[in-house]
Amino acid sequence: MEKSERLEILDDLIKMRTVNGNEKLVADYLKALFDKHGIETELVKYDEGRYNLIATVKKGDGPVLGFTGHEDVVAPVDESKWNYDSSFKPKHIDGKIFGRGTSDMKGGLAGMAIALIELNEDDSFKGNIKFIATVGEEIGEFGAKQLSDAGYANDLKALIVGEPSNSTSKLVTDKLAASGLIRITQPNPSEYGRHSIFCAHKGSVTYQVISHGKAAHSSMPEVGINALDNLVTYYNKQNEYFTKLTDADDDVLGKTKPSVTVFKSGDQENTIPDYAEMTVKIRTIPEYNNDKIIAELGELVQNMNEADPRMNLELNIESSNWPVKTDLNSDFLQMAREAFKEVWTQDAVAVGAPGGTDASQFVEANKNLEVIVAGPGNESAHQINEFVFEDDYLKFIDIYKLIAQKFFA
Amino acid sequence: MEKSERLEILDDLIKMRTVNGNEKLVADYLKALFDKHGIETELVKYDEGRYNLIATVKKGDGPVLGFTGHEDVVAPVDESKWNYDSSFKPKHIDGKIFGRGTSDMKGGLAGMAIALIELNEDDSFKGNIKFIATVGEEIGEFGAKQLSDAGYANDLKALIVGEPSNSTSKLVTDKLAASGLIRITQPNPSEYGRHSIFCAHKGSVTYQVISHGKAAHSSMPEVGINALDNLVTYYNKQNEYFTKLTDADDDVLGKTKPSVTVFKSGDQENTIPDYAEMTVKIRTIPEYNNDKIIAELGELVQNMNEADPRMNLELNIESSNWPVKTDLNSDFLQMAREAFKEVWTQDAVAVGAPGGTDASQFVEANKNLEVIVAGPGNESAHQINEFVFEDDYLKFIDIYKLIAQKFFA
Repeated sequence: MEKSERLEILDDLIKMRTVNGNEKLVADYLKALFDKHGIETELVKYDEGRYNLIATVKKGDGPVLGFTGHEDVVAPVDESKWNYDSSFKPKHIDGKIFGRGTSDMKGGLAGMAIALIELNEDDSFKGNIKFIATVGEEIGEFGAKQLSDAGYANDLKALIVGEPSNSTSKLVTDKLAASGLIRITQPNPSEYGRHSIFCAHKGSVTYQVISHGKAAHSSMPEVGINALDNLVTYYNKQNEYFTKLTDADDDVLGKTKPSVTVFKSGDQENTIPDYAEMTVKIRTIPEYNNDKIIAELGELVQNMNEADPRMNLELNIESSNWPVKTDLNSDFLQMAREAFKEVWTQDAVAVGAPGGTDASQFVEANKNLEVIVAGPGNESAHQINEFVFEDDYLKFIDIYKLIAQKFFA
Repeated sequence: MEKSERLEILDDLIKMRTVNGNEKLVADYLKALFDKHGIETELVKYDEGRYNLIATVKKGDGPVLGFTGHEDVVAPVDESKWNYDSSFKPKHIDGKIFGRGTSDMKGGLAGMAIALIELNEDDSFKGNIKFIATVGEEIGEFGAKQLSDAGYANDLKALIVGEPSNSTSKLVTDKLAASGLIRITQPNPSEYGRHSIFCAHKGSVTYQVISHGKAAHSSMPEVGINALDNLVTYYNKQNEYFTKLTDADDDVLGKTKPSVTVFKSGDQENTIPDYAEMTVKIRTIPEYNNDKIIAELGELVQNMNEADPRMNLELNIESSNWPVKTDLNSDFLQMAREAFKEVWTQDAVAVGAPGGTDASQFVEANKNLEVIVAGPGNESAHQINEFVFEDDYLKFIDIYKLIAQKFFA
């Protein structure tokens, strides 16, 4: 594909205002593009105006490699603050392409779509690739969850997530590493540049614990049941549990990190509160997995309710995003590193990533799935004046193709 | 004074809409009434439209007896739900007077004002009475606090608070006692009727503890300081302190009762909260007084801040209302019981009262002050269709006069 067409596809995607909605625009556009190139597609509806897209290239009987990216973007915050009015009107300036989603992750998505088309047209390529474009990643990984539940990840052997894994400079990479936001574990860290491959990221379990009590006037607290006191009693028990939970350690991801982030109870100084709620976010690692944590929290709550008739706790799991980890010595990761080296003539470090991705959902459905996160975007994701280097975007098309070729070699 | 005039004065007061404001209406009305009867008065401004009133009868060199009541009333809740549209339009039906404030406590206030006038006109009476009408009792005892701070309670030896102390039937009194809301301690409880004298009520210390932390993303909790966690740490220490606090016991009031009634922290599951606040209401008894509690809480907070540099707690005392207690064997209480017996031909029980009164403020300024709470109102206070029995209202004028006569006999 010509460079101009490659750039035009990305521009077209950026113009689509897919802020937690309207992903059908992207799905329809890519479907038409794939149709034109004879690639089989399937639209999977999530909601009105919100469609996931699956595109399949099947040229052999072997395993299936996944390419995945999300169609939605985060809000532009304040459009008036974007230089050149560029939030949904892409601008190409000094080698950079500005616009919401350039980094996160229409750059990666367009790159993967083009790589798919070019691999399909390459007669020497004999592999099987499933391209998966999802809705609602930024809010709750809705599309990926829907597709995983429906079995779309079951036949995947390995998966590339095109989320931003570049930094704009080695300085930034170093800074991120120093702050603990990414963890560099690949050998020879002195030789790395600004390119990383995320081979792991934490998962999370987010839940609410609600305590039901009985209101009373504060002059007669014993007539009521103080839901707040009961929830602190739970908090203290939970803290004991967290000590055990945080024993486990992962070489790339570090320890499980639980945080109680919300606690709300009562609004009148004179009234014993009959309701209290707590929100907890646990960042998880493979060594202590989500299902185990959810089961143990359920037991904790049940035991406390049974031990004290005045205790009426309720556990609501709000979300469970699995930790993602691919072995540092895996062939798949090694192929990706080789592809990076060929394209950038520099080593890429493999790191633990700060944020979660749709891969959490795919891994929950397919626990043996090997995942890497690699995409042209950088740390300008979610910021005003988000951008991607034009060269990074173009080079990543080659990287995606190279990884696929190595995978099916 | 004629019965018709006695009833008219009460009706006039009920018509004044003094819901946490406009108390000047009552103060001006009573001032005019006292002026007419040659009684010296002083208006003490609290705020625009809000005046306390002091009226003084001085006929001897002995001690001073106080009569006190508040000019404000609570909101009528829903005026459309009052029978006969009677919330601020008093209605006399079947021996009852309906209207907001009939029980709490324009009945007691009018009764005391009339008793003062009649005692002033009684040449045989040689005592000194200070009548104190206050603003803002229902919200925070503002007027009483203002007057106490200014020294108005310093010369009082004893004080009658005209808040509702009647029940509408012995059944109700029994029910209140059974629920623990009042505590009957006077001898021969089998003989009592529906009339009580409150010789004690708890005080309270209400305060906020604020925890200041540092926000961070939940993926890196160690970069922040979780204000919520720190406030629970404080809560646990405070609980240890409460064990000691609740050792003390009062024969009439029972134990100190602390309640944590509000806890608020965080609003985003992804963010380590940098702020947390807790509201605590401690119902206090004379054996463990407010100043001691406030000092000990201050020490607790200070010690925790000093012990841990990541702990940044702030203690804000919102209000301190002193406990009120008059010895069950005191002459003053005995006089009141005799007066009740003469008027009702039945024993009155002396009980610990459920709610607080302005006396908390007067007692803080004058710790030796003897206080009883006795007034014609009943448990319809604060309710829709609040009422006072006409006969109770009229008889209480005699009771106030009788107590004063006995006090200065």
